[in-house]
Order: sequence, then C-alpha cells, then structure tokens
Amino acid sequence: MTKEKLSIIKIGGNIIENDPSLSSFLKLFSKVEGKKILVHGGGKRATAMASKLGIVSKMVDGRRITDAETLEVITMVYGGLVNKNIVAQLQALRIDAIGLTGADINSIQSDKRPVKEIDFGFVGDVKEVASNSIEKLIQANFTPVFSAITHDGNGQLLNTNADTIASQVAIGMSKIYETSIYYCFELNGVLRDIKDKNSVVKHINAKTYQTLLNTGIIANGMLPKLENCFDALKNGVSKVNMGNTSMLTKENDNFTSITL
Amino acid sequence: MTKEKLSIIKIGGNIIENDPSLSSFLKLFSKVEGKKILVHGGGKRATAMASKLGIVSKMVDGRRITDAETLEVITMVYGGLVNKNIVAQLQALRIDAIGLTGADINSIQSDKRPVKEIDFGFVGDVKEVASNSIEKLIQANFTPVFSAITHDGNGQLLNTNADTIASQVAIGMSKIYETSIYYCFELNGVLRDIKDKNSVVKHINAKTYQTLLNTGIIANGMLPKLENCFDALKNGVSKVNMGNTSMLTKENDNFTSITL
Repeated sequence: MTKEKLSIIKIGGNIIENDPSLSSFLKLFSKVEGKKILVHGGGKRATAMASKLGIVSKMVDGRRITDAETLEVITMVYGGLVNKNIVAQLQALRIDAIGLTGADINSIQSDKRPVKEIDFGFVGDVKEVASNSIEKLIQANFTPVFSAITHDGNGQLLNTNADTIASQVAIGMSKIYETSIYYCFELNGVLRDIKDKNSVVKHINAKTYQTLLNTGIIANGMLPKLENCFDALKNGVSKVNMGNTSMLTKENDNFTSITL
Repeated sequence: MTKEKLSIIKIGGNIIENDPSLSSFLKLFSKVEGKKILVHGGGKRATAMASKLGIVSKMVDGRRITDAETLEVITMVYGGLVNKNIVAQLQALRIDAIGLTGADINSIQSDKRPVKEIDFGFVGDVKEVASNSIEKLIQANFTPVFSAITHDGNGQLLNTNADTIASQVAIGMSKIYETSIYYCFELNGVLRDIKDKNSVVKHINAKTYQTLLNTGIIANGMLPKLENCFDALKNGVSKVNMGNTSMLTKENDNFTSITL
C-alpha cells in the first residue's frame, strides 16, 4: 500500500529574523500541498532578548551553553513569541496551525546531554518521537508547528537543535507517511563552488555523495548537515531537500535533493 | 441523553507566582477525575519581565494598557514560559497536556476592544470558541492548557482576561459536555464576613444571590466575578465553583458553589 505524503519543512534563523521574510515564507508554506509540519528555531531573537535581559551568552568551542536563565529566554522566545506569532499568521492564511514544543502531547522526549568535556546545560538529544500522538493532530486536520524545545518527561524543558527536531520528527512519522524534509536556509542548495551561488548540485545520492566528499566539494559546515540527511534517509525518510524557501514552489527546481 | 462531565479549572496569578504552590496545584489538578481543561494567566511574572526589559506598565483607571511591547512580553511569559513549564510538569504527572493560545487550532477568536474613552491596546473580547476543534483534542485524550491569549483571525494576538477565557470556553463546551467551572483564588470562597476567612457562603443560586446583593454581602471586587458566573450559568454551564485549590479534592467542601 502506498503511504500518503507528509512534508516536514524547517526554517532557519535568517527567515525568522525579520517580519517581511517570515511573512512571505508563511505564504509559501500555506500553499504547500498535502499534509505538512513546520519546524523553527528562534536564532538571533533569543540572543537579542538574552542580551536585553543582561544574560551573557556562554560559548564553549563556538557552541552555546544553555544555563537555566538561557533556557527561560529560549522558552519565552521560541515557545512563546516566535511560535505563537507564526500560528496566528498561519490562521490568517487559513492553515489550522497548532504550536508545539516536545512537551506538548509528549511529542518529543529527549535525554539531557551527558556532561563529558563540556557541560552544555539544558540541552536535549532526542530519544523518542510520539508519532501516534502527532498523527492524531494531523488526522484532525491541524498543522503542527514545532519550536526547538523538547522535554525529558520529568518536567524539565530542554533546548534542542531545530535541524535534529525536523529529522527526528520525519523519521518518526515515516512509519505512517512517505516523508520528505525541506531544509530552508540561506544558500540555494549544496554548491559545487562556494563562490558561485548558482552552482547548485541538484541531486545527491549515497554514491555521488562519496565523490563529492572525495573531491572536497562537501566539507566543513556542510558535512554534518549532509551526515544528518543520510541518517534520516537510512531511517525511513524518502527524500531530503536543501535550498532557499522558493524550493517550496513548483517554479524553482534549483535546489539540492538527496536520496539514498 | 446525559452529557459527560467536563471541568474547566482556572488558576490565578497567586498560584503561578511561586514554584512550590504551582507544583502542588498541578498535583491536585492531575488527580481531578474525568475530562478537564486548565486555564491560566501569568500575573506578576509578566509585570516583572516587563520591568526587567525597561517597559513601563501603563495603567488607566487601574487597568493595564497592552501596547505592542507589553503584548510581546505577555506572549513570551504566558504563552511560552508559564504555559510550557506547566505542560512539562503535567507530562511528568502523566497528564497528556497540550498548551494552547486562542490562535492554536483557532480555538478562541476575539475582537480587539474598540477604542472609546480608553484605548486598551491589544486586548481581545472573546467572539467565538471553536468547541468542535477543542473537542478533537479532548477526544484524543489530550488535556488542553489555555494561556490568557487569543487572536483576531487576521494574524494579531490579543491579551485576554483569563476568567473570561475560562467562562467562554466552558460556555462553548456546554454544547457537548455538562460543564463545571472551578475558579481557584486566594479566598476560601464568597465570604459572609470579609474579615472571617471561614465564613464561606457554600451555595448561591439566582434567588439567594439577590438576598446577598441586597444585604451588601456581595459588593465591589466580588460583584463582577459573580455577574460573570451567572452569565456562564445562563449560557449552558451547569455549575461554577469558587474557592482555594483544595476545593479540587473531595476532603474540602468549604467553598462556594453557584447554580441558577
């Protein structure tokens, strides 16, 4: 039996940063056909709010440490301000959105990251996605909008990477749906030449991926992203797409799509 | 056909203010039998956050004006910080909670209060409760947790009185359920003598209400609350209860219950 399609669309901080770009993205999102889920972080908005409140961002090896104060800011900004404004705007576009953290309907449970060399604080690594509960919302014709927050099941909220939430939710929902992930970011896709924004590699599979690795086209920042993509594909996701938001329209085919 | 029972429980700022009182309330809430909905404001937490951010609360005739900055704080504090921490704590108590504003699943639509003598800013008066959508969540065994925020359907979030949200949600759900409202507040109930905290009037109905009014026992602060209760009762709600949180247990019968 062929499964119904489900799109999991993740937007990055650059889209949330300013109101016009968020509102034009939401228009595109509202027109995406079929069942869909939106995943967002909050990016610089949380940093700006933390700094207004006099909270100094603690970084170790370029990574943010989530102490109790920072977690409060993230819960306010991602779970409240950004999430609820997205939901209200989607309602205006006649999308029956519902804003969620991983605590809501116990949708995403995480383990607090164990302290090794670095104590990341209140950061969660996803343990379990409650696909049956999320499915109840989708079956009711609601469109889930996830912010980048999970919980440990014992009352503790945890800051969680939005890319990971997108891939883990997609993996979880693959039991029920044929899932595709769309990672919307600032580039047009994986680029053959980082200086040429139009040198998009349109298709990558496990075999061509090796070639791209060997020739050094995929390196540094792109490497962990691509590793995540292949992890999702190996765990049931059908396709992962990377590009700017216009890849959600049928007019633009200039983005990277990745399959096994 | 007898309708199934649904309890709508509203907590005030005094319970949210400190962690131990919130956590003991949530334990009581988790033990309430049958289907239930929680409604909360955020009270002083929003004022404290606003003041940290250097936002001066504007009051006219003792009532707060919700300008754009204040609405942002309310969305962060009520919709994010307070709501998501309540949801995470309820999950730890094995209540499958889902945090909502009126924008989520378009559950509560409001009209921005018209500007007359006073411009209250981004304040909403409830227009419509989507009882069928809320019912889908309840049927899925989720427990809705409403923060005191609604929306206008055109993308604008609106600050809305939590007592009103409780009564309007209860009225809306009365089509489907036999509804009871529990207003948890600092007093033990409606008091015969304001100086004697144990002088609780245990039962009020439309007839005895008139007597209480005539004898001046119900006056000032209590009057609008009681008017709201009778409004709810006249619009389908079966019973309204007022008292401290222990009225949710079977041990305490020392609270005020109001019927037509």
